[in-house]
Amino acid sequence: MKSGGSFNDLMPDTLTIALDAMGGDRGPEVVIPGADKALERCPDLQFLLFGDKARLEAALTAYPRLKAKSEVIHSEISVSMDDKPSQALRRGRNVSSMWMAIQAVKEGRADVAVSAGNTGALMAMAKVILKTMPGISRPAIAGMWPTLRGDSIVLDLGATIGADADQLFDFAVMGGAMARCMYGVQRPKVGLLNVGIEEMKGVEEVREAGRRLREANLPLEYYGFVEGDDLGKGTVDVVVIEGFTGNIALKTAEGTVRQLTTFLKDALNQSWMTKLGYLLAKSAFDALKAKLDPRTKNGGVFLGLNGIVVKSHGGTDAFGFAAAIDVAIQVTRNKLIEKIAADLTVKSYANQAGENSALNAEGI
Amino acid sequence: MKSGGSFNDLMPDTLTIALDAMGGDRGPEVVIPGADKALERCPDLQFLLFGDKARLEAALTAYPRLKAKSEVIHSEISVSMDDKPSQALRRGRNVSSMWMAIQAVKEGRADVAVSAGNTGALMAMAKVILKTMPGISRPAIAGMWPTLRGDSIVLDLGATIGADADQLFDFAVMGGAMARCMYGVQRPKVGLLNVGIEEMKGVEEVREAGRRLREANLPLEYYGFVEGDDLGKGTVDVVVIEGFTGNIALKTAEGTVRQLTTFLKDALNQSWMTKLGYLLAKSAFDALKAKLDPRTKNGGVFLGLNGIVVKSHGGTDAFGFAAAIDVAIQVTRNKLIEKIAADLTVKSYANQAGENSALNAEGI
Repeated sequence: MKSGGSFNDLMPDTLTIALDAMGGDRGPEVVIPGADKALERCPDLQFLLFGDKARLEAALTAYPRLKAKSEVIHSEISVSMDDKPSQALRRGRNVSSMWMAIQAVKEGRADVAVSAGNTGALMAMAKVILKTMPGISRPAIAGMWPTLRGDSIVLDLGATIGADADQLFDFAVMGGAMARCMYGVQRPKVGLLNVGIEEMKGVEEVREAGRRLREANLPLEYYGFVEGDDLGKGTVDVVVIEGFTGNIALKTAEGTVRQLTTFLKDALNQSWMTKLGYLLAKSAFDALKAKLDPRTKNGGVFLGLNGIVVKSHGGTDAFGFAAAIDVAIQVTRNKLIEKIAADLTVKSYANQAGENSALNAEGI
Repeated sequence: MKSGGSFNDLMPDTLTIALDAMGGDRGPEVVIPGADKALERCPDLQFLLFGDKARLEAALTAYPRLKAKSEVIHSEISVSMDDKPSQALRRGRNVSSMWMAIQAVKEGRADVAVSAGNTGALMAMAKVILKTMPGISRPAIAGMWPTLRGDSIVLDLGATIGADADQLFDFAVMGGAMARCMYGVQRPKVGLLNVGIEEMKGVEEVREAGRRLREANLPLEYYGFVEGDDLGKGTVDVVVIEGFTGNIALKTAEGTVRQLTTFLKDALNQSWMTKLGYLLAKSAFDALKAKLDPRTKNGGVFLGLNGIVVKSHGGTDAFGFAAAIDVAIQVTRNKLIEKIAADLTVKSYANQAGENSALNAEGI
């Protein structure tokens, strides 16, 4: 909680979380029980709940623990899941639950905002309200990707389309800082997603970003290029890619998971013997299901703005929404924005080193 | 077999297939038994085998059926799996098994060439020898993608990086023609891979390609935009994307399959009960394994050149190499190049329609 907050100045460890309580496919029905679950795990929370006051207060009666830690602030408008960003900005400026939740972060009344609302609208509003950090020209959405050796962070998952070398460099800095917040590693391994691992592969923006990362003095280990199959392997802690390909890679992986689980279900329904085998091995399938549960990886972090907004999946349930709040807590408590700002101070050095790379090749 | 061929002018239904017998991780050890398997399924084949003559003749002694249908042509050089395209062209021009196999297609001595050699070198040589078709500025690699409802064709899987609207349009034409050859559909559904399905989504090249496809009079059904998860669903018969993102999507899906099968194996090894369940349901796991067997989808087709080259996976076995030969047979017998050439005649119309789209919107 920044100074100037409304009701917990004396509790420095308390985080205040602004929730767009109308966001997502089911709004308060998911947001309220989700917030309650997060509060159960982490009692040092306060919530600002933005939305239809009557509806929220009615919903809160079943959650007295949450009610005691929440302030409800009425909003007139709810951004719909189909609103185009421009529509949402026109209709929802100042008066929507989504806008007001982000505005609370801007004004220091909340430490972080969480919304399950429509991604395009949320990013558009976040950019307008919070603005990009000094030195950052484009925000990114970073998500957690389940891998064979734990999670990795992948960005950009679709905040913007295309990125030049400088923007890819920024994504690496921001993703590295997020990995330090989320995984507690001191020097996360960062790779650039490309179509091959040799230095001459791919587009010039990616190659140039690689040269700059190799030379920059950052609290991360620049690994080099990684390929699409390194995502599932978990070769690096952070995978950097521009948003068009990042979004397609994410949805391709999600589609492949659904395809395989469908194949598997169909195959196990073939005969009484395969069905019996399924029953005996049910604990294995349950473990697999838990591992693939998208709710546990819920929470895309908007990086590069002067304040943190976490996007929950719109169709998630209370369990998933609570996971997005957990992500918000972790990056906020571990001072993600301050880490990014500190790391970005190397940028002038990095650019200079890039220009003089023939003379200054000791970092290669 | 085009006229002017060397030894089967009187057998118009016989296909002559040029094989780079030294290509792939294991060369003749895989190519020879693979060709024999293909011949077993399709006895109307003749082979030109390019490679080390002594080694090939020795290998052929175990395959008398294949030997009777093959001509061995000695080559001095084998392109290695690590050769850069420029190295391969320097070392292998005129004298490598890879070059000579493609050259046989160019000269009409073979109908199609198949190689398990390194993709970059194979594409570089194919471009130099065969040249792009009139009206095509860039070749593409098209592969078969297993989906929930059979296979789809996806291109470009990495022949080139980036594509403008005209090139994406060409990829759609070529992929559509390939779908007609492979699946026997008259009007395959073709979609453009994008980050959303609304018309204003994505990069301008993709949107412009979509407008042109909607207005062009082609033997295909232009479906619109598809997203990454539509690949696994099999929403369309042909998915079109430029090669950078196409390659990353392919490898992401491959990596996800490996990740999930590893998770599944680990889970099934948890206890004696899950192991017993696995044994009882083994037929289901075998069916799943068969469905995911990459060998059955082996064979990337180089499209857009004046002749067809099929790329087999370098690490495949005889079963997989035979599958790549099957693809070569199917696209050649069904006159893929002639179909593409005929379809491309609409291009001048399509471009014109694109320019006048405001006046000529009836196709929308």
